[in-house]
Amino acid sequence: MLTVAIPKGSLLKDSIASFAAIGLDFSAFLEKGNRQLQIEDPTGQARAMLVRNGDVPVYVESGQAHVGIVGYDVLREKKPQVAQILDLGFGGCRLSVAVQESSPYRKSIDLPAHSRVASKFVQCARDHFRDLDLPVDIVPLYGSVELGPITGMSEAIVDLVATGRTLKENGLIEIEELFYSTARAIAHPLSYRLNTYGLSDSLNALRDHLRSQRKTT
Amino acid sequence: MLTVAIPKGSLLKDSIASFAAIGLDFSAFLEKGNRQLQIEDPTGQARAMLVRNGDVPVYVESGQAHVGIVGYDVLREKKPQVAQILDLGFGGCRLSVAVQESSPYRKSIDLPAHSRVASKFVQCARDHFRDLDLPVDIVPLYGSVELGPITGMSEAIVDLVATGRTLKENGLIEIEELFYSTARAIAHPLSYRLNTYGLSDSLNALRDHLRSQRKTT
Repeated sequence: MLTVAIPKGSLLKDSIASFAAIGLDFSAFLEKGNRQLQIEDPTGQARAMLVRNGDVPVYVESGQAHVGIVGYDVLREKKPQVAQILDLGFGGCRLSVAVQESSPYRKSIDLPAHSRVASKFVQCARDHFRDLDLPVDIVPLYGSVELGPITGMSEAIVDLVATGRTLKENGLIEIEELFYSTARAIAHPLSYRLNTYGLSDSLNALRDHLRSQRKTT
Repeated sequence: MLTVAIPKGSLLKDSIASFAAIGLDFSAFLEKGNRQLQIEDPTGQARAMLVRNGDVPVYVESGQAHVGIVGYDVLREKKPQVAQILDLGFGGCRLSVAVQESSPYRKSIDLPAHSRVASKFVQCARDHFRDLDLPVDIVPLYGSVELGPITGMSEAIVDLVATGRTLKENGLIEIEELFYSTARAIAHPLSYRLNTYGLSDSLNALRDHLRSQRKTT
């Protein structure tokens, strides 16, 4: 049976809408008090697993899910061996460098050499500063990265910014964008080539749906 | 000012009680709707930062916090350069190998070579199977690790078990314990040696408090 990996959290609702557009109903995940992590589409055509955004590529890479939806930021950070098929357009945010508003830094390259940069996106941050030829110490933090500059633990952070509200509340400003991220449909490469359980047909239908949507908006 | 790092989540309440026992009041973190991530003790003796359990050693290692409370599991997984001072006794859980109850495996060594083992504790899992001389593929997952064996993505998992309820609900059983974890007080080694802001005095007071508690119970 076609198996899809759906991300918990902020991409959940639009992910379910994407599958609904091609006739797959996983809305049971949205029901209040849902504790199920695996459900079947009522028509019995497909199965969905509800997993962390960051775990989606792991399921797709291993072939346990044929297709998944995940933020582009995760693909950039983890570089999984999956086929990137479609840009779904939702879940837009920027991976950006931010510093304290009161600091003198207004570009990444302004930071002193050997500054500390706190981030959940260790690889992306490392790549960014390596490209600038600026040696910095990346401090891996997994929650409340904005505490870094406030406590003096780091001169800068590299973090996802959607509305910018969290930065503002913490006296931080965005000084450089590494890349813009949106939700992507990814597939297991072999399953996609072989059209396993109609995987490529489903993704083509989703592509057509997106195109028709873009025409009308 | 003495700065402490307090873990969010399941260790929060007992961590605050530990500091209360030595006269430091950070109970504001427990107030409903609290959004503050940094507070001062009302007497002005110390400051606390509220961070993820996994981030506590990062703050202590960098000297941004002089002392912190963190689960032993994090210390085993990340091996940070901090001084482990006290076993606080609370937050007990086991890092264990679990498999599907219906599987034939009852010890780690029963797993077939090249089995897949899903875990958040990649290093601990790797060390465990290396010690057994059993080559396995560790699959890094960050949420709902128990989905691994259910979806067929992995033969086993290595995960924290407190009550065992999650395992049971998912048809899994614990077959081997890697180690038992409790909350630990950790300190920045240099600050501890120098008794910065009375750090070692505070930790000695906490040690005395724990001893007196153990005598009366």
